[in-house]
Amino acid sequence: MAGNPNDTNLDNVLATLDRGLDQSLERLYALLKIPSVSTDPAYRADCEKAAAWLARDLSDLGFKADVRPTNGLPMVVGHYDAGSGKPHVLFYGHYDVQPPDPLEMWTSPPFEPRMVEEGGIKRIVGRGTADDKGQLMTFIEACRAYIAAEGKLPLSVTVMLEGEEETGSPSLKPFLDKHKQELKADVALVCDTDMWDMTTPAITTMLRGLVLEEVTVTGPNRDLHSGLFGGPALNPIHALGRVLGLLHNEYGRIAIPAFYDGVNDLAPELQSQWSRLDFDARKYLGEIGQTRAAGEANHNILEQMWARPTCDVNGIWGGYTGPGSKTVIPSKAHAKVSFRLVNRQNPEKVQAGFREFVRKRLPADFQVEFHSHGASPALQLPLSSPYLQKARAALKAEWDKEAVLKGSGGSIPIVGSFKRDLDMDSLLIGFGLDDDRIHSPNEKYNLLSFHKGARSWVRVLAELAR
Amino acid sequence: MAGNPNDTNLDNVLATLDRGLDQSLERLYALLKIPSVSTDPAYRADCEKAAAWLARDLSDLGFKADVRPTNGLPMVVGHYDAGSGKPHVLFYGHYDVQPPDPLEMWTSPPFEPRMVEEGGIKRIVGRGTADDKGQLMTFIEACRAYIAAEGKLPLSVTVMLEGEEETGSPSLKPFLDKHKQELKADVALVCDTDMWDMTTPAITTMLRGLVLEEVTVTGPNRDLHSGLFGGPALNPIHALGRVLGLLHNEYGRIAIPAFYDGVNDLAPELQSQWSRLDFDARKYLGEIGQTRAAGEANHNILEQMWARPTCDVNGIWGGYTGPGSKTVIPSKAHAKVSFRLVNRQNPEKVQAGFREFVRKRLPADFQVEFHSHGASPALQLPLSSPYLQKARAALKAEWDKEAVLKGSGGSIPIVGSFKRDLDMDSLLIGFGLDDDRIHSPNEKYNLLSFHKGARSWVRVLAELAR
Repeated sequence: MAGNPNDTNLDNVLATLDRGLDQSLERLYALLKIPSVSTDPAYRADCEKAAAWLARDLSDLGFKADVRPTNGLPMVVGHYDAGSGKPHVLFYGHYDVQPPDPLEMWTSPPFEPRMVEEGGIKRIVGRGTADDKGQLMTFIEACRAYIAAEGKLPLSVTVMLEGEEETGSPSLKPFLDKHKQELKADVALVCDTDMWDMTTPAITTMLRGLVLEEVTVTGPNRDLHSGLFGGPALNPIHALGRVLGLLHNEYGRIAIPAFYDGVNDLAPELQSQWSRLDFDARKYLGEIGQTRAAGEANHNILEQMWARPTCDVNGIWGGYTGPGSKTVIPSKAHAKVSFRLVNRQNPEKVQAGFREFVRKRLPADFQVEFHSHGASPALQLPLSSPYLQKARAALKAEWDKEAVLKGSGGSIPIVGSFKRDLDMDSLLIGFGLDDDRIHSPNEKYNLLSFHKGARSWVRVLAELAR
Repeated sequence: MAGNPNDTNLDNVLATLDRGLDQSLERLYALLKIPSVSTDPAYRADCEKAAAWLARDLSDLGFKADVRPTNGLPMVVGHYDAGSGKPHVLFYGHYDVQPPDPLEMWTSPPFEPRMVEEGGIKRIVGRGTADDKGQLMTFIEACRAYIAAEGKLPLSVTVMLEGEEETGSPSLKPFLDKHKQELKADVALVCDTDMWDMTTPAITTMLRGLVLEEVTVTGPNRDLHSGLFGGPALNPIHALGRVLGLLHNEYGRIAIPAFYDGVNDLAPELQSQWSRLDFDARKYLGEIGQTRAAGEANHNILEQMWARPTCDVNGIWGGYTGPGSKTVIPSKAHAKVSFRLVNRQNPEKVQAGFREFVRKRLPADFQVEFHSHGASPALQLPLSSPYLQKARAALKAEWDKEAVLKGSGGSIPIVGSFKRDLDMDSLLIGFGLDDDRIHSPNEKYNLLSFHKGARSWVRVLAELAR
């Protein structure tokens, strides 16, 4: 394709991007230093600061960008109009991050990003490097290079960045409903997923849904001395522990009646591609300190991660949890329970089924309350999508390898909303790696992911503009 | 018995005590204001302050008193020598208190004691009022009144006050071993138990033992994202919840093999007295918000509390427990588990049985660690004890009612040590009430308990001196 003016332009944009890498990193570090933790109201001002920082950066690039209030944390929206007749994409990312705790397990402060070289691989370490600030900045840096080199973007781009992704996106649906016309595009681009490995790109075509529940079990009407009342007193920790212990059977199958309604067998195309993947189960398990997989016994690990639903208790607490001992029978015990959904599982039915399961198994006198932290269905991208074909071509040009079409165990609620509310497919292209430790101490993002991720977006924009 | 010079003396002592009640309360408040929480190292200096305060107060009374260091929190020891040929008693109490949390449930600050009148009953509200500062001060105020009125005590008294009662008394045994000769007396007096009701005294003749365990279950080697790893990843909360849920069967019986070794049927004398007690099971349960007792189905509530062993999870924690949600699979989950023992149950065997029970029920790949926070056997006072007969006479004189001979569900490890190491029986006489909310927010001690408690000790000292 030498001599094609488009390719000359592309080389120019990529060279501009390469030359500006140090400045790109400086901007990323500035964003990472803002502790925009969305799950804890104490960080609200920092979330707002991160939103303002991004809107200003987009404005500097030539986007018409601003910060939009919601009932929760604000949205950043920016528009770049390339003129009529051009394709129009909507890019989505999120500026909020997970809490950094347990702090003592970080080898450097979570909000003071730094470059670490290990075995010749340069890694940016800090909360949000991979999830999702580093990823969203690959797209913004691609746009910046395009505009610097060519004076403009080759297609119209709307950027929408939310601040509630880590809390189940409660404000997202109202916001989309309100701004449907403004946000609708030909296709959405989402950068919050992983590559297959460090040198093999991937496009995620299956996303698990998510149901987030919090359950509080009450036994006695107040905390009691376990010596004076132990025996007659109900203990809510026993009841909660017992019912949570019943959620899975011995084969890893979830015991809630009708839970598997809407779960399909894996599509033959995907089954075929996945079976050819170089996946080392022993290595995967060894890296997390296990010798066996905990999921459904009749499904392999990739299926357990990408194509099967799960139930996990993400947090439990009750009674005295400080140093030493306290002989108390607490009045209340609590748990945060999440479900990952696949295919056509109905989030509302899963929620109702869980609540009924718990209620039915609590002995008399116990009271139970439930609180929802969000619910979203699973999503699958049609393999026949023309956008998918263009993206595959762009990624192959950058990485010199076919992109793996994979599933993702993690939820990105926006993708379901784009489909349902805006009738828009999403291209899930991300440059994270499964050792990025997202949600954990010492989260990192490889410099290669950041650099070639931005280059990949330059190529994807060029392909989609054709 | 009018005209008996002893009774005249006694009236004089009691009148002195009555006149000085306001000053007695002032001293109690000063002690209550020191937040001597032993379970949390952050309060170490406050524990030392409480010990120093008590040693100074005993010295002011004429005791030879000082603060003795241990490997943990210090002991206060004071001696009053009434001359050879006089009986010699050892009084035991503890100056440490439970943590005040949850702080938000206190109606006034826990370490700012105040008098509250409810329905004509005056109550001293604050952490430690009933457990054990208010109780131990009834004895010290009785001694003070005796010395003020008569110039001396009628018998030799050693006072020993420890600071680790709420943490399983780790330093007690080494201290007793070291100071056996110094501390040995004819009988021990312990003031850390309850009356039968507001106007009926009680002597506790059965004390449950206590085994305190902390268990940590490890699944994956680090915290994981529940989307990316959910399915294959082991979840230690599931495993811990399941095994804790297996500790009791559906009839409230503890499922650990050989756990009931050494548990006897109740002695016929006690069975007979207890069956005549005016105990309202419905009211008891109603006050803690229950309609049924949670303990062993074939034992009544008094037996469940006083004469049967228990197992309670006193605390559980793991994963994300803050506001909102965090989709994490934690590496570790923790629980604090305690056992109340009766009769000849062996604490070491119970501890070993529990650990074996947990280990055997954890699926492959889980790791488990245990940490002991203390272990002590149960204790029974012989009903034939002459000290018991004298104490019953003294209490009947003060309260005009027979003392109930009861059991106590709570543990006082010292009493077992007194028996084993110093071959000394203990008289367990206390003036607490079962609505005192010890270990809970808004702990209180009735003014009547404090005042008539001190008067009771004056009479007990006089009886024992005869």
